[in-house]
Amino acid sequence: MGERRISAEELLQFVMAVLSRLGVPGDEARIVADVLVSADLRGVESHGVGRLHFYVDDLVLGRVRPVAETRVLSEWPSLALFDGGKSLGAVVGHRAMLHCLDMAERAGMASVTVTNSNHYGIAGYYAMMALERDMIGLSLTNSRAHTVPTFGRQAMLGTNPIALAVPAGEERPWVLDMATSAIPLGKVEVAQRKGIPLREGLAVDAKGLPTTDPEMVLAGGALLPLGGPAETAGYKGYGLSVLVDILTGVLSGGGYCAAMSPVWCESPTSHFFAAIRIDAVRPVAEFKAMMDRMIRDLRNSPKAEGQSRIMVAGEPEYEAETQRRREGIPLGAKVVEELEQIGARVGVTLP
Amino acid sequence: MGERRISAEELLQFVMAVLSRLGVPGDEARIVADVLVSADLRGVESHGVGRLHFYVDDLVLGRVRPVAETRVLSEWPSLALFDGGKSLGAVVGHRAMLHCLDMAERAGMASVTVTNSNHYGIAGYYAMMALERDMIGLSLTNSRAHTVPTFGRQAMLGTNPIALAVPAGEERPWVLDMATSAIPLGKVEVAQRKGIPLREGLAVDAKGLPTTDPEMVLAGGALLPLGGPAETAGYKGYGLSVLVDILTGVLSGGGYCAAMSPVWCESPTSHFFAAIRIDAVRPVAEFKAMMDRMIRDLRNSPKAEGQSRIMVAGEPEYEAETQRRREGIPLGAKVVEELEQIGARVGVTLP
Repeated sequence: MGERRISAEELLQFVMAVLSRLGVPGDEARIVADVLVSADLRGVESHGVGRLHFYVDDLVLGRVRPVAETRVLSEWPSLALFDGGKSLGAVVGHRAMLHCLDMAERAGMASVTVTNSNHYGIAGYYAMMALERDMIGLSLTNSRAHTVPTFGRQAMLGTNPIALAVPAGEERPWVLDMATSAIPLGKVEVAQRKGIPLREGLAVDAKGLPTTDPEMVLAGGALLPLGGPAETAGYKGYGLSVLVDILTGVLSGGGYCAAMSPVWCESPTSHFFAAIRIDAVRPVAEFKAMMDRMIRDLRNSPKAEGQSRIMVAGEPEYEAETQRRREGIPLGAKVVEELEQIGARVGVTLP
Repeated sequence: MGERRISAEELLQFVMAVLSRLGVPGDEARIVADVLVSADLRGVESHGVGRLHFYVDDLVLGRVRPVAETRVLSEWPSLALFDGGKSLGAVVGHRAMLHCLDMAERAGMASVTVTNSNHYGIAGYYAMMALERDMIGLSLTNSRAHTVPTFGRQAMLGTNPIALAVPAGEERPWVLDMATSAIPLGKVEVAQRKGIPLREGLAVDAKGLPTTDPEMVLAGGALLPLGGPAETAGYKGYGLSVLVDILTGVLSGGGYCAAMSPVWCESPTSHFFAAIRIDAVRPVAEFKAMMDRMIRDLRNSPKAEGQSRIMVAGEPEYEAETQRRREGIPLGAKVVEELEQIGARVGVTLP
């Protein structure tokens, strides 16, 4: 068993084969596989193929529909309500964003709010679909409750990410993809496994009090929103998290996270997408040249003492992707074991 | 001299009279005065009539045009580019948001990106203009550079606020209005005057190193983005700040903050507005009822030990407004002195 490196293409083929065996049509399996493998390529393992076993369970148990049945429930020139039909979240997100891009093509900009979907992987994937059309893309989703509101002790909010992708010229696109919680739950789990404390201001225990002990967080505690406790403006991260819940769950009617269950945000997951057609307001080349200048000005600005580098959003992920395309994707022992179990279950061999 | 309480209506009339003497037409003076007094009513003194002297200087020195000359430079069904003509920011913002609401009325949702404007006061004012039409309103602006990028030592970003206003039913509207910096500069100045330290993780000194000493921050230091240093995810606040700069300055062509000058974001200030017509996707009454439930679920959720109250975005500001409408707006001695000087300069008496 143990760790293993697998090429992105081999991993993609494996995930596609698994999903196909479970009744997912080829083109839909390719989208789901691409979303998962993209996360691993970009170094976001928490949203990569390590999640495949959840998807497999959902398909086997009939909680998720293998053949996507999505439909547009209402449509205005620049705003649509999209029903994901309880299909695989990645397929729903992909279709909804394509629809959004087509609407923006005609109207200048557009938004699509989506209900009845499921976990859609990394939010940034859908935002980045706008790039090849020289548009700006936005992607939001609500998610399972792991985050307390400021002064709360019960998780009422998801990690509710915000992703924005913006084309540049000579520079790589600027891609922000961030949870509105201070940290992801995965980092707490890693700290627990390694037996190291968390930084202050990231999480609370079961009483809602700040703690740096990952055990206490996992034993009935929760994450703090971006900004940490109230004294360091954590109410802003709390506000951003609710903002995401409003544009996804409340606007679409799918329901906000805290309404689902006191602790756990069940399906339906809701998303929100937007796209802006840059050439509706200025020539794309001029826009991209200004993005390049902004990125370089930020990167080249004076560094804090002891620091040698200022990065821009998306840069660490591009570097991970470059390296992993060359050297393969490193999979931990636990993920390898899970993937082999899945393979054995459906009759597909992990390369 | 000294502190004074003045009713909102008296303060509004005073500001209007001052602006009229400086050549601002009555209806435009009313908008600017309403934006400033609204900030004071809502407890956001940093953006209230304490700023009037800046506006007066700008008008006297001819840096700002007293009679607004705005125009739509390009328009698609749901996206427009708006030129503020170097007019007073509040008048530009008001006109651009009205235009945005009209576009959203027809298309379902719409955005307007604005260049050649000036300081427009509280971002939330324009977002809240959507409420009376049962729409969701978004308002963003770039601003003078006070914030470092993660690992930087030079202020490259404004406090670049994000404001979203969302109608509710029996509950008051949900209104988020937050700077993407960890704290506003005003809080550093207050700490300096009182001789008290800042909390950790909010600001840096001239070397870009974390400091709690307000003197060090004001002596060539800068604010940290929301989230604080990198270890507590300050790169997310940095990303959000750049997001605002992209949708305002880069999309409109007005220029991003750091491009203006190494330290100081000069005019043109750029804004971005968006509006979403709720009934394009679901009945407004249903949407509002769900907002009410979400607000109550958050408010009534279990409190952290030692805490008695969980608030939602906009709640502290509504409480300040209720109190100040009843008791008058408290003005500090410095602001009273400034207002009296302004009054003497243009021949208007402060009540």
